[in-house]
Amino acid sequence: MTTILHGNIIHTPSFGALETIPGGYLILEDGVIRGIWPDLPEEYAACPVTDYGDSLIMPSFADLHLHAPQYPMLGMGMDLPLLDWLDTYTFRTEARFEDEAFARRTYRRLARDLITSGTTRVAMFSSRHTDATWILMEELERAGVAGYVGKVNMNRSSGLSQETTEESISETLRWLEGCHFDLVKPILTPRFTPSCTNELMAELGRLAEERDLPVQSHLSENTGEMALVRQLHPDCAQYWETYRKYGLWKDRTLMAHCVYSDVREQEAMIESGVWAVHCAASNVNLCSGTAPVRELVNRGVQVALGSDIAGGDQLAMHKVIVMSIRASKIRQMETGASFLTVPEAYYLGSSAGHRYFGGGEGFASGQKLHAIVVDDGSLPEPVRELSLAERFERAVYLMGKEQIKAVYSEGINRL
Amino acid sequence: MTTILHGNIIHTPSFGALETIPGGYLILEDGVIRGIWPDLPEEYAACPVTDYGDSLIMPSFADLHLHAPQYPMLGMGMDLPLLDWLDTYTFRTEARFEDEAFARRTYRRLARDLITSGTTRVAMFSSRHTDATWILMEELERAGVAGYVGKVNMNRSSGLSQETTEESISETLRWLEGCHFDLVKPILTPRFTPSCTNELMAELGRLAEERDLPVQSHLSENTGEMALVRQLHPDCAQYWETYRKYGLWKDRTLMAHCVYSDVREQEAMIESGVWAVHCAASNVNLCSGTAPVRELVNRGVQVALGSDIAGGDQLAMHKVIVMSIRASKIRQMETGASFLTVPEAYYLGSSAGHRYFGGGEGFASGQKLHAIVVDDGSLPEPVRELSLAERFERAVYLMGKEQIKAVYSEGINRL
Repeated sequence: MTTILHGNIIHTPSFGALETIPGGYLILEDGVIRGIWPDLPEEYAACPVTDYGDSLIMPSFADLHLHAPQYPMLGMGMDLPLLDWLDTYTFRTEARFEDEAFARRTYRRLARDLITSGTTRVAMFSSRHTDATWILMEELERAGVAGYVGKVNMNRSSGLSQETTEESISETLRWLEGCHFDLVKPILTPRFTPSCTNELMAELGRLAEERDLPVQSHLSENTGEMALVRQLHPDCAQYWETYRKYGLWKDRTLMAHCVYSDVREQEAMIESGVWAVHCAASNVNLCSGTAPVRELVNRGVQVALGSDIAGGDQLAMHKVIVMSIRASKIRQMETGASFLTVPEAYYLGSSAGHRYFGGGEGFASGQKLHAIVVDDGSLPEPVRELSLAERFERAVYLMGKEQIKAVYSEGINRL
Repeated sequence: MTTILHGNIIHTPSFGALETIPGGYLILEDGVIRGIWPDLPEEYAACPVTDYGDSLIMPSFADLHLHAPQYPMLGMGMDLPLLDWLDTYTFRTEARFEDEAFARRTYRRLARDLITSGTTRVAMFSSRHTDATWILMEELERAGVAGYVGKVNMNRSSGLSQETTEESISETLRWLEGCHFDLVKPILTPRFTPSCTNELMAELGRLAEERDLPVQSHLSENTGEMALVRQLHPDCAQYWETYRKYGLWKDRTLMAHCVYSDVREQEAMIESGVWAVHCAASNVNLCSGTAPVRELVNRGVQVALGSDIAGGDQLAMHKVIVMSIRASKIRQMETGASFLTVPEAYYLGSSAGHRYFGGGEGFASGQKLHAIVVDDGSLPEPVRELSLAERFERAVYLMGKEQIKAVYSEGINRL
């Protein structure tokens, strides 16, 4: 089936580039992008057109690090030191997902809130609960959010939500057996090195290889955590080596934060095809630091963005994009590394994440459409006609749910 | 007339303090707060009650630094260096306020957007245009926003919007003659030292004394500006002295930014009763720096918050409050100065500003009510019943216009 979208097409075909096609036509065959045309080609003259008028058609967002079971505690405990925050809120909140009815309500709301905010692909941490994790995957699928979800493994020093090694392994196997979803696939998720015993790490590494499963975890988020890792693994000179030791440091492994990843750790990421997920809001909220995002990108590390709720307080990725720009400006003032421009940060919050899942950059042909349609007509009246590049920037800074009029995920409008 | 509001009352009676009265009664006589009671006193039993149920009744916001004629350029040019940003956007945008019809539309929208965001008091820069400044004052008054507005004075190196010294002075006098508003009063507004000649500064200083008018301007926002000031006023060891020299450094003078105000400048503020207006979002957007807000407060400088649109991109003060917390966390990581807690930052964004205008702290008796009513029932479902302090924090981080159900300014609901 042919679908034709008409509107102002704006996308980021590569890191830093911005392409604008005023009043253009985006043509899909069965949800797959065939191309972008400034005028409607003759051969499509008879096809119906979805006309978005003067609205902006832009790539949708990809959120490559967030904790679904922390959604109920969004915006709370932000004044607490990390360990108190974990004890008072995080572990207690995650423990609540034993209750399937509560999980269903929360995850249905979260999945819907992702779509209405324009996020169509995710790499997500669930809790340790197998059944709640399936519910999360079901609800994402129902809402039209694609990507990876991981049942969390944590059998050491993790407060209320701890599991035994045997449980952790057997429940992971049970969980993997029950993952039969189209849009949402499993990803192995050792919470982070300090919360997994060596035995569990080794078992997860074996599973990752045996079943060719991707892996996500945390890396070099704050200095206290790094000291703890050194203490637990005195044989590893650096944090990343604890993952490599057990076969978890491999192609497409997602590592959240990387605030303190130095040249050696960055080069290890490049060598193994490990991705860094930059979570600017969370890093500031929890006083972790500002990640060297420009350095990571320049050196050649694959970088995407994450909301990291509930360390981050903002689910909407356009807000996370703006926070990434702000954090990079702080970093520029501290180190001189140039800040992220709006097209650069947008690329990291959209195309980079889509690419992780095998999607294309911007609106590349041959890929299922992941797009949002933004009606900026209700924003303050400008003093002159704005270019599409200006409208794009303004939309990134000012849009809210009320401006997002359509959200295409895997080629279908899910709004 | 007696008005009684019923709901969960939360306020900040002093810097850092948070008082919560679950299901309390806020009683007003002709809009003036008589007091807060946990139960309705017998003598009021017959009075009608406005019942806000389980909603939160909190102090409204005061925005002590923003540029009204920059509203049309909100969220644009944020990637540009300061001088390009001024040339490409600011001066051209402000010049447009020659057109009274455009000014009317923009200022009506701005005034309404302030109220719907919960901001009820402002200290605002207009443009250099007398007529548009009256329109701004009229529209604020119509919407129910109280405070100060200043016709901007700028007769030197200010791009397109420049005025001659004679014009600047005669128009200021004409503008003052026409200021007959109840809620909105005039404030003298030399744009900043580099944009005013000594003659103009001296004349404004004379006017300030003669007519006992307050003054607002900018101070020590970035290092380039400070170097320029030193060059223009080689007789002044510090920036603030350029204002003192002309009688503009006095009790209740508002100085925006103070990012680079050192101990001497801070002490000069305390000695003269000058206020610092901290504009965290703007300071990060324009790569100015992070202001020493904890140091200012601890030393005893009076500090309030400003959105500084359009250097800041967020009109809503609850977002500015969150940005102030974030900036203070960055500052803590850099200098060790402890960050602003949520109640502290809220106090600066509400009570501190109200106090500037003679209002009380929190819901102090004897003051006209400035309050917002927040319905947080639509925020994500928590895992347990939350305390009012927790709901307060969550509201600060997550609320939007859709949660703000009533906005009291000068004792009247303006929503």
